[in-house]
Amino acid sequence: MDETVEKKIRVGILGASGYTGGDLVRLLVRHPCTEIAFMTADRHSGKQMDEVFPHLFGLELPPLISVEEIAWSAVEVDVVFCCLPHGTTQNIVKQILTENDTIRVVDLSADFRLDDVDTYAEWYGHEHYATDIQPMAVYGLPEYYRDRVVNTRLVANPGCYPTAALLGLLPLVEAGQIDITDIIVDAKSGVSGAGRGLKENLLFCEAGEGIAPYSVATHRHAPEIEQEVSKHAGGAEAYVNFTPHLMPMNRGELCTCYVRMTGGATISDLRNTFEARFAQEPFVSLVPEGVHPATRHVRGSNYCLVGLFRDRIPGRAIVVAVIDNLVKGSSGEAIQNMNLMFGLSEITGLEQAPLFP
Amino acid sequence: MDETVEKKIRVGILGASGYTGGDLVRLLVRHPCTEIAFMTADRHSGKQMDEVFPHLFGLELPPLISVEEIAWSAVEVDVVFCCLPHGTTQNIVKQILTENDTIRVVDLSADFRLDDVDTYAEWYGHEHYATDIQPMAVYGLPEYYRDRVVNTRLVANPGCYPTAALLGLLPLVEAGQIDITDIIVDAKSGVSGAGRGLKENLLFCEAGEGIAPYSVATHRHAPEIEQEVSKHAGGAEAYVNFTPHLMPMNRGELCTCYVRMTGGATISDLRNTFEARFAQEPFVSLVPEGVHPATRHVRGSNYCLVGLFRDRIPGRAIVVAVIDNLVKGSSGEAIQNMNLMFGLSEITGLEQAPLFP
Amino acid sequence: MDETVEKKIRVGILGASGYTGGDLVRLLVRHPCTEIAFMTADRHSGKQMDEVFPHLFGLELPPLISVEEIAWSAVEVDVVFCCLPHGTTQNIVKQILTENDTIRVVDLSADFRLDDVDTYAEWYGHEHYATDIQPMAVYGLPEYYRDRVVNTRLVANPGCYPTAALLGLLPLVEAGQIDITDIIVDAKSGVSGAGRGLKENLLFCEAGEGIAPYSVATHRHAPEIEQEVSKHAGGAEAYVNFTPHLMPMNRGELCTCYVRMTGGATISDLRNTFEARFAQEPFVSLVPEGVHPATRHVRGSNYCLVGLFRDRIPGRAIVVAVIDNLVKGSSGEAIQNMNLMFGLSEITGLEQAPLFP
Amino acid sequence: MDETVEKKIRVGILGASGYTGGDLVRLLVRHPCTEIAFMTADRHSGKQMDEVFPHLFGLELPPLISVEEIAWSAVEVDVVFCCLPHGTTQNIVKQILTENDTIRVVDLSADFRLDDVDTYAEWYGHEHYATDIQPMAVYGLPEYYRDRVVNTRLVANPGCYPTAALLGLLPLVEAGQIDITDIIVDAKSGVSGAGRGLKENLLFCEAGEGIAPYSVATHRHAPEIEQEVSKHAGGAEAYVNFTPHLMPMNRGELCTCYVRMTGGATISDLRNTFEARFAQEPFVSLVPEGVHPATRHVRGSNYCLVGLFRDRIPGRAIVVAVIDNLVKGSSGEAIQNMNLMFGLSEITGLEQAPLFP
Repeated sequence: MDETVEKKIRVGILGASGYTGGDLVRLLVRHPCTEIAFMTADRHSGKQMDEVFPHLFGLELPPLISVEEIAWSAVEVDVVFCCLPHGTTQNIVKQILTENDTIRVVDLSADFRLDDVDTYAEWYGHEHYATDIQPMAVYGLPEYYRDRVVNTRLVANPGCYPTAALLGLLPLVEAGQIDITDIIVDAKSGVSGAGRGLKENLLFCEAGEGIAPYSVATHRHAPEIEQEVSKHAGGAEAYVNFTPHLMPMNRGELCTCYVRMTGGATISDLRNTFEARFAQEPFVSLVPEGVHPATRHVRGSNYCLVGLFRDRIPGRAIVVAVIDNLVKGSSGEAIQNMNLMFGLSEITGLEQAPLFP
Repeated sequence: MDETVEKKIRVGILGASGYTGGDLVRLLVRHPCTEIAFMTADRHSGKQMDEVFPHLFGLELPPLISVEEIAWSAVEVDVVFCCLPHGTTQNIVKQILTENDTIRVVDLSADFRLDDVDTYAEWYGHEHYATDIQPMAVYGLPEYYRDRVVNTRLVANPGCYPTAALLGLLPLVEAGQIDITDIIVDAKSGVSGAGRGLKENLLFCEAGEGIAPYSVATHRHAPEIEQEVSKHAGGAEAYVNFTPHLMPMNRGELCTCYVRMTGGATISDLRNTFEARFAQEPFVSLVPEGVHPATRHVRGSNYCLVGLFRDRIPGRAIVVAVIDNLVKGSSGEAIQNMNLMFGLSEITGLEQAPLFP
Repeated sequence: MDETVEKKIRVGILGASGYTGGDLVRLLVRHPCTEIAFMTADRHSGKQMDEVFPHLFGLELPPLISVEEIAWSAVEVDVVFCCLPHGTTQNIVKQILTENDTIRVVDLSADFRLDDVDTYAEWYGHEHYATDIQPMAVYGLPEYYRDRVVNTRLVANPGCYPTAALLGLLPLVEAGQIDITDIIVDAKSGVSGAGRGLKENLLFCEAGEGIAPYSVATHRHAPEIEQEVSKHAGGAEAYVNFTPHLMPMNRGELCTCYVRMTGGATISDLRNTFEARFAQEPFVSLVPEGVHPATRHVRGSNYCLVGLFRDRIPGRAIVVAVIDNLVKGSSGEAIQNMNLMFGLSEITGLEQAPLFP
Repeated sequence: MDETVEKKIRVGILGASGYTGGDLVRLLVRHPCTEIAFMTADRHSGKQMDEVFPHLFGLELPPLISVEEIAWSAVEVDVVFCCLPHGTTQNIVKQILTENDTIRVVDLSADFRLDDVDTYAEWYGHEHYATDIQPMAVYGLPEYYRDRVVNTRLVANPGCYPTAALLGLLPLVEAGQIDITDIIVDAKSGVSGAGRGLKENLLFCEAGEGIAPYSVATHRHAPEIEQEVSKHAGGAEAYVNFTPHLMPMNRGELCTCYVRMTGGATISDLRNTFEARFAQEPFVSLVPEGVHPATRHVRGSNYCLVGLFRDRIPGRAIVVAVIDNLVKGSSGEAIQNMNLMFGLSEITGLEQAPLFP
């Protein structure tokens, strides 16, 4: 099939002026089967995209508009990517799905990731505004939910940290090879993971030449990781320590996961589990023994690399997973989900090799 | 025409373990019309490419071999990219072109860039080893020599700095709008421009968090720039001050060119010249007034952005040009030349949008 | 004399929550002859300094207050450092000098640097608010005005770029060895030079891994440099092209100055001029031939290094000057001026060796 | 007492051309009670220090010599700092202590840190060459061994990682509040921690814009940490998972320690323990609740900041410790030990405030 001559998928993007929106556009303008119908950015309404993101020059893109300008019942798009801040998305997604019968949504915010609306309220500080919509949402980790993604109208695209952590943990959880009440995830992220907002801690001079943890034991990605670990352990309660650190690089996320093996599992068993589980995955690989996964080896790409290490503490293992937080951890994964939803090959438009150095 | 079903161009790469070689492979593995037949890297002979460049994992690539293993008369490749150090290339290119009647060469070293072999000897410290081959070489700045590139067997791919500087200067030189004896090029480069060799000044701690000039008034790209400026001024003698600085980023090169306008030319005239000259160029653009070209806006791409500024000193103008030194300044430009040599659309395989942030 | 047992100089700081204020405090808390009496930061009034600058922990410092809380006629301080934004300083300095007979002021803003109030109005977009005070101001480049600094009540501390550029240019200007109408200053600065304000272009992801020029031909440091060049050339009109670039490092500023030699001067003559002029200077040195000045070699210190290079264009020379913009380019120079004003050795409290790597 | 007029401590430095040696010189040239008698750097013998470290310009330092030039029985120095590579130090320290009766040694290598010579042989790949000297060595963590440091002739200066990890762990170990068989130390280091050697992984382009773990479960600082944890737990066997990561900054080290509380201890108990233990320490502090320790807040200084966090997993706590690896993790700590050995105030010459940004 020559996909390019087919009718293109018409795409709308809400919140196109953040880094996630920018990377979505970067990838979509080279995707052979999509065309961008509209992009919103309330503060920048009326501007051209290259005024907001000068690297997106020379492209034929519609001007940025305000979300209020869209009549959801009439707008002719096939899919909407929501890149809006957490908390503002539930109402608008509800509106889209209610007022329009065909538009499908990939939500890149956290608003629909937690199945349990009470857990949502506990961690996000306000009640869930679309409790009736929540059950429709499919957690869009393609490697674990691709069958359900195909058929849903609402994908909750995973958080960047959960994407990396879960790809490193879930194979072992499913295989029953690790203790799900004793998981420590020490995460390191580039600054783009914190968004494009004007916050002092994101200034070059504040974030450069140094590292610090943040949101220790209180980061909202912890319940998201726990939810999925628990689900893949048959519902048993999971405890995950999640400790993120902000470090001076633009892109990249690395999760170092410290796990306790159970049931007599050995490192060799774990390795076999990963190899079998990832064998057919287009974007996830176990690195060879002796190789250390590095964020720079997946930069700009949709790949996730996982490394497995014997711990010198008996009975323990170390799993390291790396992604580009804006691609596999966000926009790339969203496009991977879109590909699934529209019957395309999962890798369409996502085949760029990593950029190094 | 569906290029992908045609017989692919068989490619050989000499010196694949440096950054230029690595970026060539990154681009070629996604090029729809090429296949990599062999790659050499003498020190790494026998290794797989992903042992040398872990970001190039999961690809079907031949193992690295030694250049001695190649029988040039028999090897079945259509084009060879030379990414060998300066000085070692003249002999091997001569051998290729002599022993084999069909192979075409894109040389990414400096060995064939200077038309005048005496100038070569003066700047590179040794006599030219292939004076008989030199006249065959076409200076591979596609925007100025694409007609000749199409028909040659030997392209001398321009230096990274000259690519940026010349794209900013030559339109004005051709138009006779600037004084070619009073050109100052203050250049700033990321560290990858200096290669992957183990030199103390390239260590992270030596190159990080700081900037310094190097090779002031003695850098070998100066005569290369002068040669082209002179040629496009009808052979008049040109003087170019070229002062490069090494700065803490991986990729990117920016040339700030200080020029004196002649013949009553105004900034507006210069702007018109650029706009007319670049109108049909797929990879070179003048940025709008008020926009400052930034290396991060071309990162990972084959684009060159040029900005033009009125100087407050009467009669002077400032031209700023930015490229990714490994793409438009090296491997991307080499592929652009290959596309021309084999009758492909010039942009084939080079359409990636810039990666920001 | 044991300075530490003398009565300490009581210091007030206006605008202590910016990078300039922070570095002033860093240096003053280890200065043997000062004590900090008050610090203002309107937005942070009531906080402790280590809430605003956590690296300044464990020190006995007064809490931050609002500038309105200070009764200038009664406050017991000997010197006030003004680190307020440009434009807000003229009124407050006028108030201080008028209401109090003894307090001396070192102003780190641009408000009193330009002798000519019309030039100020032209470049800063509003009339000068303290034209009667302006004549009192001494331009605080100690290497050129130390005699006048000793006796003044108001020092206009030079801009960071002018400090570097002038230390590289003025010796040659005074000696009549360069053409003051053809000076090009290509400057590169770390991000702290742009302050701690919440601006998008200062975010890590916007400023990291790239370089771009800004304020080309319109930067306000240009008339400041011209004023001093002109003054040291006996009042002749000077033209200086000043083109700054923002690059990804915290601290450091490098000016590459392209000059035309006059009157038959040779590189050797210029070298002699520098050596003679800097021989007794505690903080300024000419680097040996063959050495390239690097910002990282003065990081965290009050030093300025100057390098001189023969240009291959006949009759031209290149002068390179490097400083730490927050120290010699700002807070360190301010303390150097204070030392002069209070009869201390000029180097007191400023002897830290550069921090490398 | 006016220390500066006393006879100065005469210092020799072995291996002055590495980053540790360079930072030692940076600090010693401003130390009021020392003078540098000789510095060795075999590869650079005969050069001036500022040829090897241009930031150390303008100082009166002896030229670099070869270690063979020193007659240990005759050389007039009071203390020798050894900054030689691991493995080469045991023989030379033995020679010094044997041939000379008064010289005292602060060894910054790992050669004398492990009490047990068999453990040394196991981890360092060769037998210990000075088993008779080993018992003289005092582990130079001043906060725990200052009484013994005062009287020894041989200080084994701790590793950079162990310094940070132990200052965060030992107070809790001594108090019996954590399980010493379940300690996980996830460490992040700037590139200077890996030294100045020409290794590909230390190049700017290899280490920039990314993070990766290295030496997972095999790093030699693990047994060093375990030795001290065990000793301070009355000799009970300790297990420490130590996983270091290399990240793109020059200086700084952060250890995130995941510990299990024992005996009913609460976070509040742990906090009390730290506060009591650090109350009199000049260089170690617990940050207030809610503050996250950051490496940039100790840059260039001898301070260690520790943060304590409640883990959401019941019974667990998180301890974060940050240092500048070249100062408190190396040269600064060495000077702190020297101060103790020679009866000076422990903080002499080490009072520089951190450099931020």
